[in-house]
Amino acid sequence: MFKILKAASDCAARAGVLTTPHGAIETPVFMPVGTQATVKAITQQELEEMGYGLILGNTYHLYLRPGPSLLDKAGKLRGFMGWNGAILTDSGGFQVFSLKDFRKIDEDGVSFKSYLDGTEHRFTPESVIEAQIAIGADIIMAFDECAPYPCDLGYAAQSMERTHRWAARCLETFRHKGDPGRQALFGIVQGSVYPDLRRVSAETVASMDFPGIAIGGVSVGEPQELMFEAVEQAVPYLPAGKPRYLMGVGAPVDMIEAVIRGVDMFDCVLPTRIGRNGSLYTSRGRINIKGSRYAEDFGPIDPDCGCAVCRRYSAAYLRHLYKAREILYCRLGSYHNLYFYRQLMARLREAILSDRTMEFRERFLEQYRSNEIDGA
Amino acid sequence: MFKILKAASDCAARAGVLTTPHGAIETPVFMPVGTQATVKAITQQELEEMGYGLILGNTYHLYLRPGPSLLDKAGKLRGFMGWNGAILTDSGGFQVFSLKDFRKIDEDGVSFKSYLDGTEHRFTPESVIEAQIAIGADIIMAFDECAPYPCDLGYAAQSMERTHRWAARCLETFRHKGDPGRQALFGIVQGSVYPDLRRVSAETVASMDFPGIAIGGVSVGEPQELMFEAVEQAVPYLPAGKPRYLMGVGAPVDMIEAVIRGVDMFDCVLPTRIGRNGSLYTSRGRINIKGSRYAEDFGPIDPDCGCAVCRRYSAAYLRHLYKAREILYCRLGSYHNLYFYRQLMARLREAILSDRTMEFRERFLEQYRSNEIDGA
Repeated sequence: MFKILKAASDCAARAGVLTTPHGAIETPVFMPVGTQATVKAITQQELEEMGYGLILGNTYHLYLRPGPSLLDKAGKLRGFMGWNGAILTDSGGFQVFSLKDFRKIDEDGVSFKSYLDGTEHRFTPESVIEAQIAIGADIIMAFDECAPYPCDLGYAAQSMERTHRWAARCLETFRHKGDPGRQALFGIVQGSVYPDLRRVSAETVASMDFPGIAIGGVSVGEPQELMFEAVEQAVPYLPAGKPRYLMGVGAPVDMIEAVIRGVDMFDCVLPTRIGRNGSLYTSRGRINIKGSRYAEDFGPIDPDCGCAVCRRYSAAYLRHLYKAREILYCRLGSYHNLYFYRQLMARLREAILSDRTMEFRERFLEQYRSNEIDGA
Repeated sequence: MFKILKAASDCAARAGVLTTPHGAIETPVFMPVGTQATVKAITQQELEEMGYGLILGNTYHLYLRPGPSLLDKAGKLRGFMGWNGAILTDSGGFQVFSLKDFRKIDEDGVSFKSYLDGTEHRFTPESVIEAQIAIGADIIMAFDECAPYPCDLGYAAQSMERTHRWAARCLETFRHKGDPGRQALFGIVQGSVYPDLRRVSAETVASMDFPGIAIGGVSVGEPQELMFEAVEQAVPYLPAGKPRYLMGVGAPVDMIEAVIRGVDMFDCVLPTRIGRNGSLYTSRGRINIKGSRYAEDFGPIDPDCGCAVCRRYSAAYLRHLYKAREILYCRLGSYHNLYFYRQLMARLREAILSDRTMEFRERFLEQYRSNEIDGA
């Protein structure tokens, strides 16, 4: 399902194509997050316009509402949300383990209470794979335990081992009930911030029959350098020919650094979440539209951006919409940030294809970091 | 500025063209309300796509934020919001008088407190015209007192007389400071629910030098038949060749009935406001998307609708977005309802042009009213 078109000569970056039943996806790729069957404030048509062909859905949220059986009837998640492209669903592990006081974990799985109505639910590797088969995404994820940060070595090791046992159970369930022609099941590397564990986990998951492998348990509050270290520890042990997905990452700079270290896929709520809160990406760094400096700025937020927002609306107008708490602000801010991410990945891919990855990185950082604006 | 292309033979309806500096507007016309320089949840591009060429801005809100002087600098309201079509601004009268406990009225004008920061402000006929000149809409409105409902005869008469004196002051200010080549100042008929007052007010405003005339003081809580009566009392005394604008109206049936009685222009927050709250217009009546009957309805909300929402998304998906409080629901609901309004006015105009106005009304009511669904 994955073909590498070009491997960089000066770093571990690769440019490739990920083939799914619903489209060929150019990598490196950023997947916008559509938690509840919608990328917040954005239409499916807009995602297409921006060039996104693969988005992410959250199994945890979709399981609770509208539920796998309804999605199954609706023509899977794609049919339900009227999305023509491909979808990846996470396993719900990250969300369930974030519940802390509202979940109980054992060897077999996790019991938790619904945040919607307090009802009791249970996720096991088997039930999560079944839910993801019903939801019907092109790429589905094994059920893992996402260990918190910080996390002591003992717990990190124990949790990682269980994640490996769960991975085998996921594969087994998928072997019986899934259809590898319609869905690809990815495994997940854990191991917290411990290099030895990351290596063991990468080797273990690499040895299993997954067509793609994710690095999980990052972006949980650890310092940036520990995230890069987790990538660096895992990548050498992952099969070169399989796609590598760094879960929940990230900021533009994080994604560039991870691509250089050999990662192909990303997802993150950042561009839409901080977009709604006033932070907008520009070629000169992140800005915060709240700033009074934008009150009479009648030019676009980023003169170098060709998106529908920058072509039509001024910084002053966006600031007004933000201050007036208008829904249109959420739309325009989210759209602009997602467009920025899409352009970033497209340009990064171009750079890899022409073997100028490190040069691209230097140039981007120079312009982007030298102008961090508003402390946004 | 107004040309009647066809007057119905069986009722008072007219189909015409309203010429503004920023486009020719086909009448009857419904103007979406862009209170704070945005039609809530909808982009300017979407308004264009739907065929809207004239939208409404609220002087009261725009005066408080971002303020007339900023709008003046931004290339007027059109430049500020990146809108290529025409705009009408109301005078702020309706909003100021709605403040009740937070305003004080005298012969010269009204003092009120800002809902944003509690600061004191004052509107006079002169200041409101000056603000509207700075805001720069194509059509601006005289400053009137919108009497509440119910309202006793004595107060209604006194308030109406003052509105007439204010109308003369508005005209005087516009004569000195305005540019009739760039803006048209409309007068407003008042008179509450009293037929004699409505007649006197219509005659008085008709005798003044306004290129268009509005019927105000309706849609303030009075029964529907009193609103129609206010229209019927005023219309015979209004110049046939000038556009007539029924302020703050209305529901689909109200607009059809008013067009039949000789009205050309409408504005109302209804399609966007109730759209956000789950009420959607269909050719078979209004529905409420909350209803469990839509949980597994994988068809469009209105099979007869050709809008971007109905072509792509199902009732079940819209219901899910609504229940999940997703921003996308507000977008899609508002879009669909505005599209419905636009189609309604376009079809009504076609009916007038082919002199089948009453036939159109019968057919619409038959299909629409016979199916009022969900008590929405």
